[in-house]
Amino acid sequence: MEPINLKGLAAQLGISISSVSKALRDSHEISPETKDRVRALARELNYQPNPYASSLRKQKSKTIAVVIPEVANHFFSLAINGIESIAQERDYHVLIYLTHEDTAKEAAICKHLLSGRVDGVLMSASMGASSHDHIQELLLHNIPIVFFDRNWPGIETAKIMTNDRESAFGATEHLIQNGCKNILFLSLTSSLNINTDRLEGFKEALIKYNQPLRRSQLIMCDLDDEMNQKRIRRALMRNNRPDAIFSSIEKMALTTYEVCRELGIRIPADLKIICFSNMSSAHLMHPPLSTVRQPAFEMGKQAASVLFRSLEKKGRYISNEEIVVPSTLIARESSSLSK
Amino acid sequence: MEPINLKGLAAQLGISISSVSKALRDSHEISPETKDRVRALARELNYQPNPYASSLRKQKSKTIAVVIPEVANHFFSLAINGIESIAQERDYHVLIYLTHEDTAKEAAICKHLLSGRVDGVLMSASMGASSHDHIQELLLHNIPIVFFDRNWPGIETAKIMTNDRESAFGATEHLIQNGCKNILFLSLTSSLNINTDRLEGFKEALIKYNQPLRRSQLIMCDLDDEMNQKRIRRALMRNNRPDAIFSSIEKMALTTYEVCRELGIRIPADLKIICFSNMSSAHLMHPPLSTVRQPAFEMGKQAASVLFRSLEKKGRYISNEEIVVPSTLIARESSSLSK
Repeated sequence: MEPINLKGLAAQLGISISSVSKALRDSHEISPETKDRVRALARELNYQPNPYASSLRKQKSKTIAVVIPEVANHFFSLAINGIESIAQERDYHVLIYLTHEDTAKEAAICKHLLSGRVDGVLMSASMGASSHDHIQELLLHNIPIVFFDRNWPGIETAKIMTNDRESAFGATEHLIQNGCKNILFLSLTSSLNINTDRLEGFKEALIKYNQPLRRSQLIMCDLDDEMNQKRIRRALMRNNRPDAIFSSIEKMALTTYEVCRELGIRIPADLKIICFSNMSSAHLMHPPLSTVRQPAFEMGKQAASVLFRSLEKKGRYISNEEIVVPSTLIARESSSLSK
Repeated sequence: MEPINLKGLAAQLGISISSVSKALRDSHEISPETKDRVRALARELNYQPNPYASSLRKQKSKTIAVVIPEVANHFFSLAINGIESIAQERDYHVLIYLTHEDTAKEAAICKHLLSGRVDGVLMSASMGASSHDHIQELLLHNIPIVFFDRNWPGIETAKIMTNDRESAFGATEHLIQNGCKNILFLSLTSSLNINTDRLEGFKEALIKYNQPLRRSQLIMCDLDDEMNQKRIRRALMRNNRPDAIFSSIEKMALTTYEVCRELGIRIPADLKIICFSNMSSAHLMHPPLSTVRQPAFEMGKQAASVLFRSLEKKGRYISNEEIVVPSTLIARESSSLSK
């Protein structure tokens, strides 16, 4: 008879694997009644914890690193939750390192990770455009790395992406179909895939609808929030005022709302807004914010799953593949046809 | 002549220390012009990096750990930014570990940290009510720990707190002065200081204004969001409907807005709302959300500063002190006198 594992316990109890795992670790999230049921069945079936132990105990650290630009962004906090949901089942520690969009810092972190303190790395690349030697060095040291959302081209490893180009195309098309003829596109200055892909999608939609692209429609932002606010204010005070803003940066949507309030610009009557965002309050804003929602939790889960599959393999082999989890356009009042 | 340090460079250039540090590390946040100015002066004055090196190089890891319940909460993402702003000046790595409010996990993380992979720990305690042996063990291993926001009583170390009791008193008084007579208090079931202190402040305000406290006014939430939503819905559908909700949990404010929308309850006319929250979109919500804003960034900065002071001392001595950084009540439309 196969020994019983978490999955088997979960199936027999009719609850999720993660609930069983939490119940066995006496988590606060699980009711005492459920804990009793789980423990009773685990005893009855002689459940032994850590079924992955045989393959994973040979690894040294039982730890993976997550290297990301920041945590204040909702995409990353949700992705972390997805990653942790998988790591927890494996009884792995997750270390989070922040790069603050600084490639020098990203390189220093990777160097720090070479010492064997982690078995593998999940990374969403920072914006800087310097060399990627630090990534190659990790791979040379047999530390597998999986990219999610933001990746460096030319590195042979697994990448968990979303359909940025199509999503940006869809969001732009949505604005055009709601009458917009002069759409501003807010983007970060960077050669990162997410920036170029989203810009590409924006341009393609303009071409499809025969709208010429003027240089002034592209607002390049950086990490200086005050400057970004000035850039948006200046753009909205032009003679030829834009009738929509499509922001590829989550927090710039809030900045745009603030500037509109300050200048007395009505959303959506005078200006329509849509934004790449995983903000949990988007639907409660005034007016509710239209978003392109990335599958952040799911992408984190997939990235961690791919990494653990590699760690369980001989030689930690990782395939050079790209998995695409699509984003969702959620149209709300901020981009709706004005009444 | 004293050798020049970051502070000296910053003073002469008239920019912040962190900008100088970023410029020298070639960060994207700094303009090319500023970088040139910083580098020129650094060369001229023969600046040598890492002035802290003499005392800190003796430490092994150049790494500190931040152990917190989650990152989806804005308090923690801001506190992390405060911590990193200090760690960056010291050229230290920051590892973030998440406990998901699970004391067993917190204990496992602390055990993991005993191996000397970090020089010190910053912690915001998880809610579980088990023993604190894992904390004592870190201290016994000469790994200093500084608590911020949430602490375990009885542990002799530094604590960076905010004035939870006074803030909760102030928020409750604000609701009472705006006419509320039946205020619900949303709280997490936990014996943690932040919960007991906020509840204390709530009770004190009721006493001051001669309002009896009924058991039904206290809504105890847990980590199950769906159940919490049911609890709020049930409370708002009672015969003796509350006229205000004071939430000590950030995300329950959004849940309350959602339930009100579903039940057709008008904010603030039928129900006033105030919440402990650092949400960046609070002022853009419909209606704008009144908040008690904790000094999250500042608390993170202070906690890191106290920890680094300890690491620079012989024997890593850390004083048993409590530093209180006050929170701010920001009254907005959600708790205003109805028109």
